[in-house]
Amino acid sequence: MENAVLLMSGGLDSTTVLAWAVDKGYRVYALSFDYGQRHRAELERAMILAKRYAARAHHSIRLDPLPFCRSPLTGAGELALDRSRSEIGHGLAESYVPARNLIFLSMAAAFAEKLPARAIMIGVNSVDYSGYPDCRPEFIEAFTRAANLGTSAAFDDNAFVVHAPLMRLSKAEIIRLGISLGVDYGETVSCYQADSEGRACGHCDACILRRDGFAEAGVADPTRYI
Amino acid sequence: MENAVLLMSGGLDSTTVLAWAVDKGYRVYALSFDYGQRHRAELERAMILAKRYAARAHHSIRLDPLPFCRSPLTGAGELALDRSRSEIGHGLAESYVPARNLIFLSMAAAFAEKLPARAIMIGVNSVDYSGYPDCRPEFIEAFTRAANLGTSAAFDDNAFVVHAPLMRLSKAEIIRLGISLGVDYGETVSCYQADSEGRACGHCDACILRRDGFAEAGVADPTRYI
Repeated sequence: MENAVLLMSGGLDSTTVLAWAVDKGYRVYALSFDYGQRHRAELERAMILAKRYAARAHHSIRLDPLPFCRSPLTGAGELALDRSRSEIGHGLAESYVPARNLIFLSMAAAFAEKLPARAIMIGVNSVDYSGYPDCRPEFIEAFTRAANLGTSAAFDDNAFVVHAPLMRLSKAEIIRLGISLGVDYGETVSCYQADSEGRACGHCDACILRRDGFAEAGVADPTRYI
Repeated sequence: MENAVLLMSGGLDSTTVLAWAVDKGYRVYALSFDYGQRHRAELERAMILAKRYAARAHHSIRLDPLPFCRSPLTGAGELALDRSRSEIGHGLAESYVPARNLIFLSMAAAFAEKLPARAIMIGVNSVDYSGYPDCRPEFIEAFTRAANLGTSAAFDDNAFVVHAPLMRLSKAEIIRLGISLGVDYGETVSCYQADSEGRACGHCDACILRRDGFAEAGVADPTRYI
């Protein structure tokens, strides 16, 4: 079995990647990050789901919130609610967090060096929505190159590979993939302001994109709403 | 004045970059990292030097030590001492910390987005010694590309520039540059196991490379040794 480090938020996408990775035979080490996000419910959720879907281990890593505090996700201003798809799709995401995936992937690379592992997995996708610069294929490719030049991988023949198996899938296709792998999406939480029991608001951008995905997949939405 | 985010360890190199940046007219925000390193004296030292050499602000950012704990610098095993230059120069540095500059630069990019700033500064150099993959020009170039594709810089016309003004300088040339800018190197601490007063051991790789630099520069070594 090959080791893999998986970035795990407890949402729909990363849980699908976990099920995919375990199905492929990887021994998965899931990493979550406590960076001062308002949706802290995702940390407990990630831990539960990592266990449920057979990750070998799950670690929650604390990050000093200082560099992140410009985003509505970390307390700067209010989240926009009930936006249309065209509003959501315009420009930089309203809920963009500065350099988040760059930092998360960098921490994953460090942890992977320690294990050791050379597979890093992330649930980004850019089909339905590309307002997050750090969810696009050109960024993942550039990060992989930087990690292979700036770590011990530069001194051996065993390069990092960043797996982003959802990159080219729509939300509806991701949901169909996950269901084929036995994922119960009622257990996952995507909402930016989920309550302490993991129930979703139904109004933030993440809720809207998720709900549309279930509709497009022709699957009943199992999300627990407040 | 243009804002710049500077990675600041309190050592010879980063202090020289600070003096260089202030001389060039940048408004410098210095960032240090508390990642469980054994040479914690550098954090207080960085704060003092940031003030002395006119940084606008200095922040010390805590990082969960979990991903880093494979290195002798963070407590895994003993530091090698009194090694020859050929031993020091062979392969991956003995004191390499997994993905350290990748993580530090990523955090700097996040903080720079918040300020905002597009200049990031780092005191890496690869002339005397290239055993740190994350101190080489090809890594800095690859990181810059990843940061520009994976942050809000991808959505505007204002790209990150990573300044590594010492990259092509030998340690002796760095020392001469710093002295021309008024740096008192007796205040800087490079040692991996400096004591609580910032005095150096004289035997670790960092001490050996630093001492050789003063000798090659023809400058009296002002380092305070234990």
